[in-house]
Amino acid sequence: MSELVGNVLVGQSGGPTSVINASVAGVIAEALNHECIDEIYGTLNGVLGLLNEDFIDLAAESQQQIRALRHTPGAALGTCRYKLKKQQDFERVLEVFKAHNIRYFFYIGGNDSQDTADKISKLAQAQGYELRVIGVPKTIDNDLPVTDHCPGYGSVIKYLATTVREVACDSQAMGQGDLVSIIEVMGRSAGWIAAGAALAKRRDHPHDPPHLILLPEVPFNQEKVLADVAKVLKREKFCSIVVAEGLVDSDGNYIAASTATDAFGHAQLGGAGDALASIIEGKLPGVKVRVAKPGLVQRAAAHAASKTDADEAYLAGQAAVIAAINGETDKMVTLVRGQTEAYSCETGLAPLSDIANGVKLLPPEWINEDGVSMNFQFARYAQPLIQGEVAVPHENGLPTYAQLQKTKVEKRLPTYEIV
Amino acid sequence: MSELVGNVLVGQSGGPTSVINASVAGVIAEALNHECIDEIYGTLNGVLGLLNEDFIDLAAESQQQIRALRHTPGAALGTCRYKLKKQQDFERVLEVFKAHNIRYFFYIGGNDSQDTADKISKLAQAQGYELRVIGVPKTIDNDLPVTDHCPGYGSVIKYLATTVREVACDSQAMGQGDLVSIIEVMGRSAGWIAAGAALAKRRDHPHDPPHLILLPEVPFNQEKVLADVAKVLKREKFCSIVVAEGLVDSDGNYIAASTATDAFGHAQLGGAGDALASIIEGKLPGVKVRVAKPGLVQRAAAHAASKTDADEAYLAGQAAVIAAINGETDKMVTLVRGQTEAYSCETGLAPLSDIANGVKLLPPEWINEDGVSMNFQFARYAQPLIQGEVAVPHENGLPTYAQLQKTKVEKRLPTYEIV
Repeated sequence: MSELVGNVLVGQSGGPTSVINASVAGVIAEALNHECIDEIYGTLNGVLGLLNEDFIDLAAESQQQIRALRHTPGAALGTCRYKLKKQQDFERVLEVFKAHNIRYFFYIGGNDSQDTADKISKLAQAQGYELRVIGVPKTIDNDLPVTDHCPGYGSVIKYLATTVREVACDSQAMGQGDLVSIIEVMGRSAGWIAAGAALAKRRDHPHDPPHLILLPEVPFNQEKVLADVAKVLKREKFCSIVVAEGLVDSDGNYIAASTATDAFGHAQLGGAGDALASIIEGKLPGVKVRVAKPGLVQRAAAHAASKTDADEAYLAGQAAVIAAINGETDKMVTLVRGQTEAYSCETGLAPLSDIANGVKLLPPEWINEDGVSMNFQFARYAQPLIQGEVAVPHENGLPTYAQLQKTKVEKRLPTYEIV
Repeated sequence: MSELVGNVLVGQSGGPTSVINASVAGVIAEALNHECIDEIYGTLNGVLGLLNEDFIDLAAESQQQIRALRHTPGAALGTCRYKLKKQQDFERVLEVFKAHNIRYFFYIGGNDSQDTADKISKLAQAQGYELRVIGVPKTIDNDLPVTDHCPGYGSVIKYLATTVREVACDSQAMGQGDLVSIIEVMGRSAGWIAAGAALAKRRDHPHDPPHLILLPEVPFNQEKVLADVAKVLKREKFCSIVVAEGLVDSDGNYIAASTATDAFGHAQLGGAGDALASIIEGKLPGVKVRVAKPGLVQRAAAHAASKTDADEAYLAGQAAVIAAINGETDKMVTLVRGQTEAYSCETGLAPLSDIANGVKLLPPEWINEDGVSMNFQFARYAQPLIQGEVAVPHENGLPTYAQLQKTKVEKRLPTYEIV
């Protein structure tokens, strides 16, 4: 393998997480170790930056700020949901890469982003432009195939399990067998996130909150859920429910939409949590329901991030650079769990196309027969991912997060019209 | 003053906070210092326990658990919203006190609870039963008069300011001048909590999030808010809004109710945040709105509590016992801010009746002229209250909270029928 001399470009895409910036920090830290790398650029807002030549000079940032990326939520380079579609767009990206001598491209994101990276990589190969493209996994949804788990997932479930436990303290104090407390969590099509809330239960305490987890994988059965709630309320002072935003009825319709659309057909207000609250209050007289919907809070809660998760996100960024330096391209870094009893994790590589076209479902056999709780296999899988706390520096009582200076890289091409 | 020998009873009432248990810990720790105190009991679920003779023996709890109360959210003794009304109820309470030789009663709560404590105290005096009653302030609403601030308030605003800052990282990454991110916070009639989110702004960065704070004190003016949002979206990548659940229109109607009631008059789903989202999406085409509603999460988020707040809650519990031992009764412990530049706080006492019948409003002169931000006077008031982080022990990746063993105290009276 010949040494490839040139510049690095790193980008972020899709929904932010608590640890996506840790992967950027890993890329930068590792890139600085290699002499064949001249400049380290970041693309602003993912593919938008690729098309608009909107790059910043990451080597110009202070070490302090780069270190702070390891605990900063959001996506410091900006992200986007724009998808490259037209051939013309891809051609433009390659032109931009050539103009800036980008030889190493690291793209941190989920399925769509890895698909984009794959296409850019393939086009470069077709045109004989030497480019090494390595994807870095990122998604709170934990739905990427091949990799054991995804950076971002451990932190969101750690935050939610913490929150379930804390709200349970509150509801237990208030309830007299008449209080239902609902937390609506993210997860449109898969229950990975909702399932993670199960970690709030202490080992061998199956009656600990959350009492019911309503997953998108288990169609909503109103009679059964109402009976379950009544049963819990009889046993406990309160009933703690975690519901995935993507909960559907047996016809596959979102319960949020079916219940909350008003008579004029206005867009639904609220979501699955409010819809469920309305059903429970309507059918179980005397029961009070409180709904919390953390929304974006859950994926941004870096002050409660998992150290394991943040460290693995950083490691994945480093591994991407090492792989590229070693001549790899068109691959995504994966996390590979060790076979030993004690948890260990190292990185591997998988073809980008395998990632782009697959999706990892929550194994149905990890859901208990009651349909509203997770079994020990899930706990064994998820527990290690939330271990350890990230020490976020506080100033004046609040966590302080990185603020990049964002020194713009001079543009070299005519403006491109995104249509 | 003669030494009063007898038993202590401590109770909690109203909505839990992150630090109400710290006050219980303070009461217990201090009570143990005094020989005139025989037993230390807790009443379960506030006045319900008073009527039902539902007491637990707090001295029987392990020191470990009592120490853990200093960082445990919720209300470990249970709380209630039941109000003593009938004379018969008050007579029963006194009977119960006499049966258990309760000579020191400490009640931790807000206005209503202090009112209850006041009435119990006055009845005891009228009957010549020597009883010392001291209230301990508690409320995230921060609306008790006389006291400079209330235990519970610092922690809720610390959590919310943290959350605003974190969600801003997320929204800044996603927005392209088209994203509005709303966080709906508690506060039915006063904006103390919403105002506290202003602390998320760095000093001398008025354009930092939250960009708009919508207080119950400032009637909702749709045109102005839409213009404000448009202005922020032009200047920033996103617009961060904190809205109090109690936001009202110029007629004093909750905007949540007026907008979200469906055509059948069904109870409104969602709240002020959803209502506001619906207005913004309807009137500003192309703008996407995301709503988060932390709900109970905000007042239970002990993992992000303010150390200053937790310490003051503990101090208030201790001060209550010391005051009672010193012969005081029918008073509430207040927090008194020092006059020096550097923040300091000690405790004082105020008549319970002064607390019960008053309410502390957010000073209108602390709201900027724009109606959507707070001035330096508010910052100077609130900033000290969020200082310091509580070190919550974690086990297996999650915070661990006190679980009292709750050894029941034997009942001595016939059952009382609560009607």
